[in-house]
Amino acid sequence: MEILKGKPVADAVCIDVTKRVEDLKNNGICPKLAIVRVGEKPDDIYYESGAKKRMESVGIDVLSVVLPADIAQDTLEAKISEINGDASIHGILLLMPLPKAIDENRIKSLISVEKDIDGLTRESMVSLYEGTANGFAPCTPSAVMELLEYNKIDVSGKRVVIIGRSLVVGRPLSMLMLAKNATVTVCHSRTKDLPAVCRDADILVAAVGRARMVTADYIRQGAVVVDVGINMDDEGKMCGDVDFDSASGVAGAITPVPAGVGSITTSVLAKHVVIAAERSAR
Amino acid sequence: MEILKGKPVADAVCIDVTKRVEDLKNNGICPKLAIVRVGEKPDDIYYESGAKKRMESVGIDVLSVVLPADIAQDTLEAKISEINGDASIHGILLLMPLPKAIDENRIKSLISVEKDIDGLTRESMVSLYEGTANGFAPCTPSAVMELLEYNKIDVSGKRVVIIGRSLVVGRPLSMLMLAKNATVTVCHSRTKDLPAVCRDADILVAAVGRARMVTADYIRQGAVVVDVGINMDDEGKMCGDVDFDSASGVAGAITPVPAGVGSITTSVLAKHVVIAAERSAR
Repeated sequence: MEILKGKPVADAVCIDVTKRVEDLKNNGICPKLAIVRVGEKPDDIYYESGAKKRMESVGIDVLSVVLPADIAQDTLEAKISEINGDASIHGILLLMPLPKAIDENRIKSLISVEKDIDGLTRESMVSLYEGTANGFAPCTPSAVMELLEYNKIDVSGKRVVIIGRSLVVGRPLSMLMLAKNATVTVCHSRTKDLPAVCRDADILVAAVGRARMVTADYIRQGAVVVDVGINMDDEGKMCGDVDFDSASGVAGAITPVPAGVGSITTSVLAKHVVIAAERSAR
Repeated sequence: MEILKGKPVADAVCIDVTKRVEDLKNNGICPKLAIVRVGEKPDDIYYESGAKKRMESVGIDVLSVVLPADIAQDTLEAKISEINGDASIHGILLLMPLPKAIDENRIKSLISVEKDIDGLTRESMVSLYEGTANGFAPCTPSAVMELLEYNKIDVSGKRVVIIGRSLVVGRPLSMLMLAKNATVTVCHSRTKDLPAVCRDADILVAAVGRARMVTADYIRQGAVVVDVGINMDDEGKMCGDVDFDSASGVAGAITPVPAGVGSITTSVLAKHVVIAAERSAR
């Protein structure tokens, strides 16, 4: 049984990104990400700090846009439009959820698709659905694809079962998998006999948000198990959607939590910023 | 083994639509569909004639817009914009493919989402993908859902396998099925051991475009088989993607071709026009 750690994948992505950043800089373009944070939520600050460090490590500039939690809708809209219009910025990371008084969908829809490196906009979604490569997928499903590719796990023709149908993981991942010619099944809370459906999978992806729900009886002998969940168990310990101890007796390969898919997302974010910068140069 | 014919479904849809058209007319709104045909292709004329008859039978007005095959891009664009702006028209049916000299994607994108009763635009697609009910799905996948609903075949929790991933049937149908809580698998030409995957299905939908490809060995005993294919066999006889004689020995219920799903599509079109007209009245 192989443990598929995130770090070597993240490192490989970063080596590639660093090289591309250098090429861009040699052509007079300095890739730059704007991180928009509204308020002082600890989760946001933590994620922002990690993303910032990652960008700096690969040579991408970061503009931190920190706005008060009680910001007015139109002020925030004006700010997003300003960043959209700034040609020196190639990507926009909007930390969410936004405060409840804000119409989040409206704000998201303002981000121009070219800078939507976290795949939030409807324009990005439809390019995923259509299978065109104009937009970006959200970072977590992109990280899953990077992990499989790095480990030379070809999905073409394989049976991929995804537990979860959210717009941030399940749905976009199903589209990315379909684009790579996987045979894709999407499961969810209403699926009957979920373990049996999951046992059909060559590659099982858990993105459901329930601590250690996926046990050995969900897994076909030798299958690849990718755990996208990030949960806290009753003892306050971080764990995935997969019961690692149980699953690792059956799976052929499995990602751990922490130190799995989650540790690849900021590298993918950096990659998306570089791609956006490369496209802007054309 | 039950044969699931299209006609009773179409009839039921039309009874409902007729009633809703009357209600609209009592409120001073006459639902109206514009059919845009470019050139004189026999297939287009045939489909237009069927759609027209259907609309008339339920009391929906039709405006036939027939344009020359050598129309200029900007003239066609202006025409679409004109129809978009005409408040008396509630739906637009654009017959495709358009002549090769025309940028079809550009023309499609001009249709306003409110009038896009055949689900062609990216805006309609993303509303399907997101699971919001703002747009319309294309008529064929909608017809499949009508057929199942009419026959009281609940898809919730069931295993639905769709062969085909096109933007007109496979993909939109997967989204409609997911919205109804089916466990959805999408197969295609690269799927390994397709018969085995299909045998997992409680409901199998064939939308692949290969004459009589799906035989008894693709079907679990008692499964529902929905045949979306319309093909001509070597003898010039119309047939589906399913080998009816072979499949009917195993399936619990099966749609015929012709006289199956295909005979529901124009009724669904009428239903979409009425829904568009109802929305315009709000």
